[in-house]
Amino acid sequence: MEWPPLRAELRGAEPYGAPQLDVPVQLNVNENPYAPSDEVVASIAAAVADAARTLNRYPDRELVALRAALADYLGHGVRPEQVWAANGSNEVMLQILQAFGGPGRTAVSFAPTYSMYPEYARNALTDWVVGHREDDFTLDLDHARAVIDEHQPSVVLLPSPNNPTGTALPLEVVAAVCEQAPGVVVIDEAYGEFRRAGTPSALELLGEHRNLMVSRTMSKAFALAGARLGYLAADPVLCDALRIVRLPYHLSAVSQATAVAALGHAEELLGRVDDLRRERDACVEWLRGRGFEVADSDANFVLFGRFADRHAVWQGLLDAGVLIRETGPAGWLRVSVGTPAEMAAFRDALDQITGHDSPAGAELNGPAGAELQETT
Amino acid sequence: MEWPPLRAELRGAEPYGAPQLDVPVQLNVNENPYAPSDEVVASIAAAVADAARTLNRYPDRELVALRAALADYLGHGVRPEQVWAANGSNEVMLQILQAFGGPGRTAVSFAPTYSMYPEYARNALTDWVVGHREDDFTLDLDHARAVIDEHQPSVVLLPSPNNPTGTALPLEVVAAVCEQAPGVVVIDEAYGEFRRAGTPSALELLGEHRNLMVSRTMSKAFALAGARLGYLAADPVLCDALRIVRLPYHLSAVSQATAVAALGHAEELLGRVDDLRRERDACVEWLRGRGFEVADSDANFVLFGRFADRHAVWQGLLDAGVLIRETGPAGWLRVSVGTPAEMAAFRDALDQITGHDSPAGAELNGPAGAELQETT
Repeated sequence: MEWPPLRAELRGAEPYGAPQLDVPVQLNVNENPYAPSDEVVASIAAAVADAARTLNRYPDRELVALRAALADYLGHGVRPEQVWAANGSNEVMLQILQAFGGPGRTAVSFAPTYSMYPEYARNALTDWVVGHREDDFTLDLDHARAVIDEHQPSVVLLPSPNNPTGTALPLEVVAAVCEQAPGVVVIDEAYGEFRRAGTPSALELLGEHRNLMVSRTMSKAFALAGARLGYLAADPVLCDALRIVRLPYHLSAVSQATAVAALGHAEELLGRVDDLRRERDACVEWLRGRGFEVADSDANFVLFGRFADRHAVWQGLLDAGVLIRETGPAGWLRVSVGTPAEMAAFRDALDQITGHDSPAGAELNGPAGAELQETT
Repeated sequence: MEWPPLRAELRGAEPYGAPQLDVPVQLNVNENPYAPSDEVVASIAAAVADAARTLNRYPDRELVALRAALADYLGHGVRPEQVWAANGSNEVMLQILQAFGGPGRTAVSFAPTYSMYPEYARNALTDWVVGHREDDFTLDLDHARAVIDEHQPSVVLLPSPNNPTGTALPLEVVAAVCEQAPGVVVIDEAYGEFRRAGTPSALELLGEHRNLMVSRTMSKAFALAGARLGYLAADPVLCDALRIVRLPYHLSAVSQATAVAALGHAEELLGRVDDLRRERDACVEWLRGRGFEVADSDANFVLFGRFADRHAVWQGLLDAGVLIRETGPAGWLRVSVGTPAEMAAFRDALDQITGHDSPAGAELNGPAGAELQETT
């Protein structure tokens, strides 16, 4: 047996993850820049201290208190038995593919899409098929229908707002995909709370499509990336199906207590979301003012370009102490929305790199005149 | 598509897990009966409060501090890069099977063995082959070699001490299996700290077999079942292989902080382990004194029997407020080792049910004269 005895399709693969670099301004993994307040920290510490007194016992396998708190937060008439939670959306997605995917079955998404999806599919041994989004990153319904019709996927994965583009799906598209898809349709609303005014959530359609699953996370709006708490809302029949493949006691008593404590501060945390939405809109406007192409964003990040040599721009920003993400279609870069000071640092660094003391259309890597690579 | 669109092999399956019943004396899932002390609780709360201040950031993906603390605890010259950790041994085992198992590959164990193993194999789509242990629950090396030779497993799973029998493997057997197996050999020492004096740990063999993986958990000796912290020690090449299939950021900052804090109290917590070992030995002796057949135990539970109708005994104990586990070969029952008061309640209830005001050889379900079912 070859050593180490990895499955053939894993040989030579690298562990997933953005570089974790120690840089003053970190705008690369769409974290919320606002650390939990003293009040939130105190609530979490108290809740964990309380949970710690019985840590010798296994946690509640059914997550009763947490699912009730999450249902209450989601609103839209969502009931606790319609909620499921796990260690980050990562684990929620893996469970979905373990239950509804597998050998001989297909999962579908439309590129550009979240870069972890093919890893989930690989880990769950599910065939992976990718359609495409349009040049403006919207999803053409005829194309979506054709791909679904051809591949009959048991799982459709649609991030909305999309990562890495920030594009939200209209409800008509979600509804039409749910009608067409023979299996489950996961609308991944990891960034749902950052939607612009007027952009709806797929939660509104929950009662109408038994195959609709809407996933969320506490990593972004709730500023709890370190706590790893993903969840979803769906028909109870689908939640029950996930219970078959979940590892028993998958979510620790400490995680459950931390999440419930943070949910008690939803109002304060969502106030910060409003600040970030304003900062996001200002960033989009500023980039467009500089002549860049910028995708509409309903998320806490902005995709902008296009650069003949995006890596050089990414490296230039990094050299200036600003870490963003080299991801998305060729020629584009993604910047997470940080604090006002962090965004100012980003703007200053980008101006310097693209020669923007001078007017738009910079010499080295500016948007105008740069040789554009084809987007994929 | 059938609804819900579960994989065919999952249809009709029930979620794994012992009944979670509210009963005064819970001796069913091998929990440590001693809740964390005030000092441990305070340490955990302080560590989590500290971690909470940066919970808006993703956790350390490589678990640097935790792996160092676990290596230090394990001793035997184990280095941090030889350690890997996840949300409970459950997730450690799943990652092992995702990396080294999969379609067309086989995992092997020997019954009676831990009842979750086939679920891990199912979730990782790995063929599952079970050899057998001898009547005294030891592993016959010729049989083990023959099974390995026939099935060429990429993963061998050997609990030691075994669950549900409590039987530890001699190092000669571990070494011989490692020599014979073409893939990895996982010695699951979830209950390792409860070994009787003179019973060695497979950690002693780590340097000698590149395919040996020794897994542990903080659920039992460290009284942290609620915190879900499993880990293993192995060649760094194998740990690196697991990093390919692990979900990024799988272990939360809160979990890492909780575990590191608890490891700082290892001495106190292992003192309780000594109490439990004494209680375990007393329980074995008492059951044998009552005429029961009892498996030697190096764990924090005792397998005893045999009963013509073990369910009736289990139910009788439950009716008396004592919850044990109906598991293991037919005719046997498993009782976790609790506090002295809990064990007294167990003894009293068992005496009542088996009519043991009178001498051994009871009327209803006692060991003597009962019609024995074949063990499997």
